[in-house]
Amino acid sequence: MAKIETRKYVYAFGSSKADGDASMKNLLGGKGANLAEMCKLGLPVPAGFTVTTECCVDFFTNKMKFPGNLKDQVTAALAGTEKEMGMTFGDPERPLLISCRSGARMSMPGMMETVLNIGLCPATIPALIKRTGNGRFVYDSYRRLIMMYSDVVMEKAEGIEPKEDMGIRKQLDRLMDEMKVREKCKSDVDLTEANLRDLCDLFKARIKAVFGKPFPDSAMEQLWGGIGAVFKSWNGKRAISYRRIENIPDIWGTAVTVQAMVFGNMGDTSATGVAFTRNPATGDPRFFGEWLVNAQGEDVVAGIRTPHPINEAMKTEGTQHLESLEKAMPSTYKQLDAIRTRLEKHYRDMQDLEFTIQEGKLYLLQTRTGKRTGTAALNMAMDMLEEGMISPKEAVMRVKPAQLDELLHPILDFHAEKTATLLGKGLPAGPGGAVGQIVFTAEKAVEWAKAGKTVLLVREETSPEDVEGMRVAQGILTARGGMTSHAALVARGWGKCCIVGAGALHVDAAGRKLKAAGLTLKEGDWASLNGTRGCVYLGAVKLVDATENPRFQQFMAIVDGFRKMGVRANADTPEDARIARQFGAEGIGLFRTEHMFYGKGSDEPLFLLRKMILSNTVEERRKALSKLFRFVKSDIKATLAVMDGMPVTIRLLDPPLHEFVPTDPAKQKELADSLGITVKEVRERADQLHETNPMMGHRGVRLGVTYPEVAEMQFRAVFEAAAELITQKKTCKPEIMIPVTCDVAELKNQKVICERVRREVMTKYNLKSLDYLFGSMIEIPRAALLADRMAAESDFFSFGTNDLTQMTFGFSRDDTDKFLHAYLEKKVLASDPFQTLDIDGVGQLVKMATERGRSTKKNLKVGICGEQGGDAASVEFCYQTGLNYVSCSAFRIPLARLAAAQAALKAAKK
Amino acid sequence: MAKIETRKYVYAFGSSKADGDASMKNLLGGKGANLAEMCKLGLPVPAGFTVTTECCVDFFTNKMKFPGNLKDQVTAALAGTEKEMGMTFGDPERPLLISCRSGARMSMPGMMETVLNIGLCPATIPALIKRTGNGRFVYDSYRRLIMMYSDVVMEKAEGIEPKEDMGIRKQLDRLMDEMKVREKCKSDVDLTEANLRDLCDLFKARIKAVFGKPFPDSAMEQLWGGIGAVFKSWNGKRAISYRRIENIPDIWGTAVTVQAMVFGNMGDTSATGVAFTRNPATGDPRFFGEWLVNAQGEDVVAGIRTPHPINEAMKTEGTQHLESLEKAMPSTYKQLDAIRTRLEKHYRDMQDLEFTIQEGKLYLLQTRTGKRTGTAALNMAMDMLEEGMISPKEAVMRVKPAQLDELLHPILDFHAEKTATLLGKGLPAGPGGAVGQIVFTAEKAVEWAKAGKTVLLVREETSPEDVEGMRVAQGILTARGGMTSHAALVARGWGKCCIVGAGALHVDAAGRKLKAAGLTLKEGDWASLNGTRGCVYLGAVKLVDATENPRFQQFMAIVDGFRKMGVRANADTPEDARIARQFGAEGIGLFRTEHMFYGKGSDEPLFLLRKMILSNTVEERRKALSKLFRFVKSDIKATLAVMDGMPVTIRLLDPPLHEFVPTDPAKQKELADSLGITVKEVRERADQLHETNPMMGHRGVRLGVTYPEVAEMQFRAVFEAAAELITQKKTCKPEIMIPVTCDVAELKNQKVICERVRREVMTKYNLKSLDYLFGSMIEIPRAALLADRMAAESDFFSFGTNDLTQMTFGFSRDDTDKFLHAYLEKKVLASDPFQTLDIDGVGQLVKMATERGRSTKKNLKVGICGEQGGDAASVEFCYQTGLNYVSCSAFRIPLARLAAAQAALKAAKK
Repeated sequence: MAKIETRKYVYAFGSSKADGDASMKNLLGGKGANLAEMCKLGLPVPAGFTVTTECCVDFFTNKMKFPGNLKDQVTAALAGTEKEMGMTFGDPERPLLISCRSGARMSMPGMMETVLNIGLCPATIPALIKRTGNGRFVYDSYRRLIMMYSDVVMEKAEGIEPKEDMGIRKQLDRLMDEMKVREKCKSDVDLTEANLRDLCDLFKARIKAVFGKPFPDSAMEQLWGGIGAVFKSWNGKRAISYRRIENIPDIWGTAVTVQAMVFGNMGDTSATGVAFTRNPATGDPRFFGEWLVNAQGEDVVAGIRTPHPINEAMKTEGTQHLESLEKAMPSTYKQLDAIRTRLEKHYRDMQDLEFTIQEGKLYLLQTRTGKRTGTAALNMAMDMLEEGMISPKEAVMRVKPAQLDELLHPILDFHAEKTATLLGKGLPAGPGGAVGQIVFTAEKAVEWAKAGKTVLLVREETSPEDVEGMRVAQGILTARGGMTSHAALVARGWGKCCIVGAGALHVDAAGRKLKAAGLTLKEGDWASLNGTRGCVYLGAVKLVDATENPRFQQFMAIVDGFRKMGVRANADTPEDARIARQFGAEGIGLFRTEHMFYGKGSDEPLFLLRKMILSNTVEERRKALSKLFRFVKSDIKATLAVMDGMPVTIRLLDPPLHEFVPTDPAKQKELADSLGITVKEVRERADQLHETNPMMGHRGVRLGVTYPEVAEMQFRAVFEAAAELITQKKTCKPEIMIPVTCDVAELKNQKVICERVRREVMTKYNLKSLDYLFGSMIEIPRAALLADRMAAESDFFSFGTNDLTQMTFGFSRDDTDKFLHAYLEKKVLASDPFQTLDIDGVGQLVKMATERGRSTKKNLKVGICGEQGGDAASVEFCYQTGLNYVSCSAFRIPLARLAAAQAALKAAKK
Repeated sequence: MAKIETRKYVYAFGSSKADGDASMKNLLGGKGANLAEMCKLGLPVPAGFTVTTECCVDFFTNKMKFPGNLKDQVTAALAGTEKEMGMTFGDPERPLLISCRSGARMSMPGMMETVLNIGLCPATIPALIKRTGNGRFVYDSYRRLIMMYSDVVMEKAEGIEPKEDMGIRKQLDRLMDEMKVREKCKSDVDLTEANLRDLCDLFKARIKAVFGKPFPDSAMEQLWGGIGAVFKSWNGKRAISYRRIENIPDIWGTAVTVQAMVFGNMGDTSATGVAFTRNPATGDPRFFGEWLVNAQGEDVVAGIRTPHPINEAMKTEGTQHLESLEKAMPSTYKQLDAIRTRLEKHYRDMQDLEFTIQEGKLYLLQTRTGKRTGTAALNMAMDMLEEGMISPKEAVMRVKPAQLDELLHPILDFHAEKTATLLGKGLPAGPGGAVGQIVFTAEKAVEWAKAGKTVLLVREETSPEDVEGMRVAQGILTARGGMTSHAALVARGWGKCCIVGAGALHVDAAGRKLKAAGLTLKEGDWASLNGTRGCVYLGAVKLVDATENPRFQQFMAIVDGFRKMGVRANADTPEDARIARQFGAEGIGLFRTEHMFYGKGSDEPLFLLRKMILSNTVEERRKALSKLFRFVKSDIKATLAVMDGMPVTIRLLDPPLHEFVPTDPAKQKELADSLGITVKEVRERADQLHETNPMMGHRGVRLGVTYPEVAEMQFRAVFEAAAELITQKKTCKPEIMIPVTCDVAELKNQKVICERVRREVMTKYNLKSLDYLFGSMIEIPRAALLADRMAAESDFFSFGTNDLTQMTFGFSRDDTDKFLHAYLEKKVLASDPFQTLDIDGVGQLVKMATERGRSTKKNLKVGICGEQGGDAASVEFCYQTGLNYVSCSAFRIPLARLAAAQAALKAAKK
């Protein structure tokens, strides 16, 4: 490091040249480095210079005094800026205005200070009024400078504690409010030039009274005040606490970028605009943007004036009559179009630009990689690949996994949605859009759907008994429940539009009414759901049929070329398995036995299951089980057949048995009648089964240990299904998974039964071998902690991250609606751990279990089958942790495939 | 290792000498080594020899052939045994009988085979009949030999699979049953000598028919058959699977101990008995035992004949008329008494002896450290210390922590209990005995107790609303709930007798009836509880007033001299704190704020709490909180004052709020009336608060984050309580504990409020300092996993091992009654993790969190406040893990102090 006396503290930039570049973020901050880079690219950028972060550090070391040689360096750089801009700072003829902005190594949005319009003072105001022809604009800019400067430089930077919480900013605001009352102005824009001029005088008087010194009406004094204030804001309260949270070292310091201000409102040769190098909505490779003549940047965004299309190509019926930049300023447009090409070549991606034309001269204010829709992302990636601009690897990295969702679901029309009546908001549990007539029971949904109606099923919350109704509905809406509530899980599994936990909606199922936003909807009324955003609308909003993009398959083929980790589906029926294969599943990672008892058309399996549950003796239970057996076997066999030799992980019965016993008195009566027992007996048994915390109760392998005959029936179903396929010369790979395990002794206990049944089935079918894998679902923290022992009895582990998250956090996912919202809002948690795997905590257990398991069994197969298997960040973590596969609901498979490929590419890059 | 040809396979033992000793367990097995040791001590032990485990290994290596040189070694050793015993094996005049027993390095009880009475055959029978004068005994022994030998040697050892599951043993049993039918005998003992002789012939004929070879009526053939069979039983099915479970290596092998049989039933100069070197019930240092002339060992135990007192000193009113060994065989008694002294000197502990006198000659068959009651353990330890037999360290190790329980509670009289009518059994939740009139409601308990009655509170299960009734009851009995149910926790906290989960009892609270064991008890009927064993009796059983042993304090003082880890109490009121200090608490490790709302005499705090919970707005809630404040403050202040400068850990409100809202319609009505709202509103709010899994719901710090005003009130109560004491020149050490944390951000969030309140209180009381500790309760797995971060905001950690166990296992302690019993019975789990800390799983988290926490903050104070803090094994683990203290309910403090001292002594020994 150079001695302080000889250090270079100031890095200038102007058109086509700069002292710095994009690589110098540590010294120049993000903003300064990027502006330098743009200059080097030859883009017309308003000239300026950056005072380095090193200078900031020295400033603090030196008791907040500027280093001795800084003044000369700033003076020299300012002269360069003046020359470049053809204006002079503080000059009464062609006055240059500048801004002072902070810029740290890492972005700290809004945490430090900025001063704009520096250089405005009585000496320069007349010339500026003359040039803009807009005195009101100039005085408004001046009063903004005074407010900002007095607050940032004179009060905060000096560490002055306001009296009675009445800072200068608030005092000036109050003066302005008083002026507005006096002048009967509704808003700031109603104040006239004269009003504003008076206001500036009032401001200056108040400042003098408060600080005992005047507002500095000297350009140079303002500049040094600005630089010092930005430095000092590095140690402001907000900045310090932000650094604590984000773990940014205090020692870094901030740079100060001093840049010439340009104005697009200096007459009819001035303009301002925003543009994208390609269409961000569709991916159309033509130049796309909007502009306004004689306007400031915010005018384009604010929507007070209708912006014009930038060129003829993007004109629509509605914008046909508006003059394009291409027509109005053909040479400037040509220059801009050339810049567009240059930028895409340099950044090799679609850019989002801000530009200003000041008196015919074009300035680029910003360029950054542009946001885009899923469709656009896919089209751009494929176009740029074809254009040779990017490589296949880059193409794969260009689409965000979550964006694939958009490509696979119909959505509400964007414009129609804007004007629709919002009934309320909930959690976006199942993506896409849905429109239908509302019904309040699953039965009604089935009945109306059969009659050809499109329905939305609206429930307080759903239960397994609603599954049939959920299946036929276009979309599902519940007033309670979280992102992993029953409704959300089922809907997501089917790729169905679903909104849950819409707390502001009052569902009166008995009265067949839905109250929301002061309106009352009754059964049969139309409503619409945006499941991607969680919005519920009145009436039938137009749906856009986002049919499958023809380039989708092509893109996914490229993706799979880079993917190393397997992707399986969570599927519970042969039909689900079929859909999963269409989406590219390489196996089933979670086949939930219990799901076959619902929504099958026939009530018999559920009835038999209930009969089994209500049995009082082992004999009765065995009898019911033997009847249930054929249903379980046939479903497993059909699923194995569909998957045609791909692995299928069959999880034994998982939920607490009481979930299957109806609580509704009418249904209890029905069940009692059909079982030939009294309602009292049904109720007593249900009471016996009742649990205080069912999530941590009698479920999973605990059922298998206490009722070995229940486990035995399931083992037999798997083995006989496999045996019959083998007999038919078909291949199949059953993998039996034991849920809710917490000790290797549970696995041993179940394996004894499993192996006995296997031998019996081999004898029965006269087979010499009957291969399968026996594995443990790792979803209880203790199983992860003792994974080395669990592995001794496991061929594979599959992380049930839903339950593992519940236990690790002590969060019941059915109950998180009461506090998780507050946790996210108050930043106690960064994200919902049921959506994105909590890498810090739950991830530790996943990593630990994988490592410990493989320390016992080197080739232990490890996968994940929780909801997070379909979340991109979680998939990446799984890849980094060395998992063999992720398993997720069918509609999330493309997402998982893409996320896995991107994870592999990212890892290879490191 | 010597070459096979020269290996010493046989180790002989006889009176006063032996080839081996107690240190040679690996080679001689436990049994062989101990017999050798006794011989070396000069005790008269029946002579014999041990064939080594090495021989067993060589036997298996050599395709189950005996090593060539074994025969000579056995022959030589057998000759020595014959000489010693003055009898000859297979001799028709003075025949020696022997036993062949297995003996592995580690005890494998009942897993391997034994053959007794070897040497009985037509050649030796007549001489034996002559010597015993008891032909029936001889033929009964012979038929036992035949049954045992044919089963163990001829069938099992040869690996013969019985046809149709009809092994030889079963066939011979059937022959015997047929004989009994023919002879009209009710039981085996009714068979005459002639019957038994015929039976032996029938047995031998059947054996010949089944195996194609005769039962070997040669002593020597029987001996070799026996040795081989014991070796082979090492690889029997039972032994192998036992080794799997216990992780015993297959390679160890078993030794075979061949020993002369002696008989106490050879006439009036023969006898048998059992004795203790001191009284195992009281600790009285005088010799204590029972004996029978002309009898076999089992006769003393079986209770068919009343055993006689061994000496005059131990005679009681009931045994005054029975002749003592001291009187009947004075010289033998003197010899035995000398042995007793010698044994105590050698083993330096009370011994439990078995002896047989054969024709005037005394033989010791076994000596082992004797079991004893808690009282005896304490008295013996103190006596032996005074006698100079043991050191203070050893005295401390001599009392099992759990035995202290006995010393602190009244108990049911042992003899009275034996004859009482058992109504049923439950879990022993609170130790000691209790007798009282049964009542079915807390209100009635309070009413009757006020009227001077002694009551037992009988409930289906208890809730916090029953606390007042539980406090006044002598004992508590519930039909439901586990060892950590509400009733169990509360009772244990008070050291109150309690039995929970007595499932066979039908409690009809409405009908005020208790049905059990076919009887119906009504309100006011007397019953008795043995809370140490979990037995419920009809009527008032005599209570023994086990008032405090005068030596207890003396013993505990010695204990504390070796203790290094702190012991605190879980206490919730000033009264509890007072009791805790009496038991030696060095602070309070868990003060549960919520417990102050029940059982205080006044209903006002609970009413205000409910009002707070039912508030709909922050303002309403603040109003209720400000009224609640003075109760909370006064309780905390009084507790801090009682503890007089010792640390008091105050846990903020922990349970889900809905626990405080009544579910009973009548109580809801009452609450609604007093709040001036409708019952519907109360019910709606209760419904809103309802949770599916409340254990993992809106509780602990989650309440503090969502309702900061609730946390604030509690912080203020702590600080104002402390400030007032400081103002009164008293010292106090408040420690504020945040429960249910899972992320450091929760701690940060609460600390901001806490620090603000502290500053406000300091200003209010004009204090310069107001010291406290701020800590995290580690009871969620994630908090343990992220302990390094948690420690950054914590002055201390306290493990809430109840909840940590729940989350780590995924066990809801309210629901484990459905499967935990089966888990323990099927050995899926070794012990109830809610009673003894699960070191393998939960312990990993405790260790990890302690290490990670201290990696961030070296001097982090770490304790445990779960139920397991009062369990000896768990206390030892806590000491090994480096915890600063354990905290448990007051009545368990002596236990914890002793366990901590023992842990320190054990660790020092290593």
